[in-house]
Amino acid sequence: MPSALTIFPVEGLPEIEPGDDIAAQVAERIDLTDGDIVVITSKIVSKAESCAIDLATVEPSAFAAQWGVRWEKDPRVIEVVLRQSRRIVRQIGPVLITETHHGFVCANSGVDQSSSGAHERILVLPVDPDDSARRARARFGDLGVDVGVVITDTFGRPWREGQTDIAIGVAGINPLYSYIGQHDPHGHEFRVQEICVADELAAAAELVKGNTSRVPAAVIRGLAWEVDDTASMAPVIRDSSRDLFR
Amino acid sequence: MPSALTIFPVEGLPEIEPGDDIAAQVAERIDLTDGDIVVITSKIVSKAESCAIDLATVEPSAFAAQWGVRWEKDPRVIEVVLRQSRRIVRQIGPVLITETHHGFVCANSGVDQSSSGAHERILVLPVDPDDSARRARARFGDLGVDVGVVITDTFGRPWREGQTDIAIGVAGINPLYSYIGQHDPHGHEFRVQEICVADELAAAAELVKGNTSRVPAAVIRGLAWEVDDTASMAPVIRDSSRDLFR
Repeated sequence: MPSALTIFPVEGLPEIEPGDDIAAQVAERIDLTDGDIVVITSKIVSKAESCAIDLATVEPSAFAAQWGVRWEKDPRVIEVVLRQSRRIVRQIGPVLITETHHGFVCANSGVDQSSSGAHERILVLPVDPDDSARRARARFGDLGVDVGVVITDTFGRPWREGQTDIAIGVAGINPLYSYIGQHDPHGHEFRVQEICVADELAAAAELVKGNTSRVPAAVIRGLAWEVDDTASMAPVIRDSSRDLFR
Repeated sequence: MPSALTIFPVEGLPEIEPGDDIAAQVAERIDLTDGDIVVITSKIVSKAESCAIDLATVEPSAFAAQWGVRWEKDPRVIEVVLRQSRRIVRQIGPVLITETHHGFVCANSGVDQSSSGAHERILVLPVDPDDSARRARARFGDLGVDVGVVITDTFGRPWREGQTDIAIGVAGINPLYSYIGQHDPHGHEFRVQEICVADELAAAAELVKGNTSRVPAAVIRGLAWEVDDTASMAPVIRDSSRDLFR
């Protein structure tokens, strides 16, 4: 039976620095309980994991240089975007929709110039967000609580304006909930087969995190979920053979 | 400053029938307060608005008939899907991704055979979900509470497995929140320009609604939002000239 869900912002986190222990920082500021789900913005994970690139060290390829001139963009930033990609899905005007090495499809491979500290450094996504989530979950375990972890980023999507937060890494909680084989009260199979709970948790958390306020983490309490330490984002990443838009 | 958000399932709703007053049904079961956002699954809106089609009355076109034979599908259902579409975006194997008359891009124009009561009736999306939401908001107003309303459906998306709930109608609350012109603590403009709050509310509500349990409505309490009675889904529907995937 579903019951009320509460979403708490984690307020008062300091600016995260390389090497910081985000789990400890969160646990200091909010009274966690077993079964909570801690949702963390990838930006602070990238900062803690030193996923910042100093543009002074980036030598743009000829392709990136041309593109930069054509669209008045910093060719070094374009070079970083290309290096973070395993495939360019769309390249129209100044817009670059790419598939990251993780398999996520998004604008500019999730490269973020907005708030990486110094102007000449840009943040890229964590190398292995599932692993980042697992390490955070383990740290929370050390601190005495059994929580799920979801690491998020803010992505656009086709057909609809406005971005939403989605999951890029999980630990402890399966990202998909399956209705396959279940039937409604009339005996029909559900049109809905699988819900991406991880993306819904990411979206829900964004409602209290926001992007301007410095609230890069939130805690969701009251969801019924089963611990699964094999959980990863792998089942969410659609194979290109099953994809109509790649 | 963000504060905690609570999401309540609206439990105990009866099977909705044509002509039912959903707002009154919800208000009877939950103690609403000004500023709440009531999130309603489109399926019950369709039922209340008699958006069910009796397949016995549907004459399939030659195109629908051929398609039905080719993929072993009921050609009358395909005919209904086509009538609910203004454009076919992808047609690969038995999969039909369409643009509805409202402008939403989804599988089978949101036509739902799963739980429309009798086997020979299928539910289609409400004709004007913003209008449905506005009428519900007005009814809640009559009942003494000033609430936002979001009407949702469950859509798939490219690149990612699993569906999520998204908004198809809003009233009182703007679906997009803009960061345009705002700057982070380092003086950079935000990479995120607009958040689709309506879709995040829809996703958050799904976490307590679910698809098997009969909880087709939820109430979100604690979001800071400004009443705007001109709100509609129009700004969320991306113009095809700005769309890279149509």
